[in-house]
Amino acid sequence: MFVGKVVGSIVSTRKNENLIGSKFMVVEPLAELGGTSANIVAIDNVGAGIGEVVLVATGSAARIGCNMADAPVDAAIVGIVDSGIGLNNHEHN
Amino acid sequence: MFVGKVVGSIVSTRKNENLIGSKFMVVEPLAELGGTSANIVAIDNVGAGIGEVVLVATGSAARIGCNMADAPVDAAIVGIVDSGIGLNNHEHN
Amino acid sequence: MFVGKVVGSIVSTRKNENLIGSKFMVVEPLAELGGTSANIVAIDNVGAGIGEVVLVATGSAARIGCNMADAPVDAAIVGIVDSGIGLNNHEHN
Amino acid sequence: MFVGKVVGSIVSTRKNENLIGSKFMVVEPLAELGGTSANIVAIDNVGAGIGEVVLVATGSAARIGCNMADAPVDAAIVGIVDSGIGLNNHEHN
Amino acid sequence: MFVGKVVGSIVSTRKNENLIGSKFMVVEPLAELGGTSANIVAIDNVGAGIGEVVLVATGSAARIGCNMADAPVDAAIVGIVDSGIGLNNHEHN
Repeated sequence: MFVGKVVGSIVSTRKNENLIGSKFMVVEPLAELGGTSANIVAIDNVGAGIGEVVLVATGSAARIGCNMADAPVDAAIVGIVDSGIGLNNHEHN
Repeated sequence: MFVGKVVGSIVSTRKNENLIGSKFMVVEPLAELGGTSANIVAIDNVGAGIGEVVLVATGSAARIGCNMADAPVDAAIVGIVDSGIGLNNHEHN
Repeated sequence: MFVGKVVGSIVSTRKNENLIGSKFMVVEPLAELGGTSANIVAIDNVGAGIGEVVLVATGSAARIGCNMADAPVDAAIVGIVDSGIGLNNHEHN
Repeated sequence: MFVGKVVGSIVSTRKNENLIGSKFMVVEPLAELGGTSANIVAIDNVGAGIGEVVLVATGSAARIGCNMADAPVDAAIVGIVDSGIGLNNHEHN
Repeated sequence: MFVGKVVGSIVSTRKNENLIGSKFMVVEPLAELGGTSANIVAIDNVGAGIGEVVLVATGSAARIGCNMADAPVDAAIVGIVDSGIGLNNHEHN
């Protein structure tokens, strides 16, 4: 998993039917975690809002761990980060 | 998932039989999402056209989420992006 | 999936028994698709020859989509590319 | 798998229900293994403490190999490294 | 899959129980395959020794293809490379 910040969201009307009802959030990996990572789009499994620091799971874990085994989902926000240490010189409180 | 633009397509006559009937689109990740990502080839699950901004799912999600569980598919266009915020200084309307 | 060129092959006598009979081709991602990607080794599912431009699927898609669900295979050539547009300033005819 | 050092942990109260009870550790890949890799968040399967050098498995292996097949987990600490050679000029004793 | 050289091994006494009995080898991707790839730790499925050039499978292929479906393994040495061409200016004999 990685830690990132919710920086936006996208709207898609025409989409795969298994995605209907999902919220698509844009997550920016914390800059401290490496400058080359791109923003990704993750479905929201915990009610995250813009600006919140979140835990993101990727791959089959996102689909299966969020009860969307049949949906084309490869990333999901699975936790709101309350605090953390060790995020590369970044103390999040 | 990531957001990209459909910039082309490829034609393949001799291919795995589970790919017959699929459309192979070339998708360029939005430049704002990180300059190192390469274009990828994704099957089209939503009727996307060249020039459209789309949502792409990768890995087993592409195969299973698009009812192609037995096909050698690792990326699929699963939504047309109507609008978005937070795509790294890119406001798509 | 990605598009690459078959540039070689490897020979392995001592190998996992589920790989017996497979051909291992070395595929170089098209330079236009990003300079940092390394050559990879893919099994050949379509009878590709050295010099041909091919479509490669990776991950579980390679294994399952090529009827090798029990083999340790994570990449497969699944199509010969006849023509393509949009491969980053590369028009392949 | 890769070898890294446990450098911290995160706390998340609001999270996916299948993650309740899991410990989330922040792992920094050994610098010798390549400077571009970011720290990742892994669940702890072996009782690792901060400062320890550990073996991390990623992808479906983390979920399935740690008896958490239904949880949105894509990385797990699966061993404490006692010693190692070949970690890119890094002899860990 | 990718081709690399076995450059070491690691010892881990306290580990996930499904890993007991496995050998953990450190594999360095051939330099010719791209300078940014890090060394990885792979289980040994074919009896590889230090210094040998090997074929490595990653992801679920490593687990399932090596009869370790329940183990947290995401990389495995699945063949000894006898010879190869096309490994980016590297002719291995």
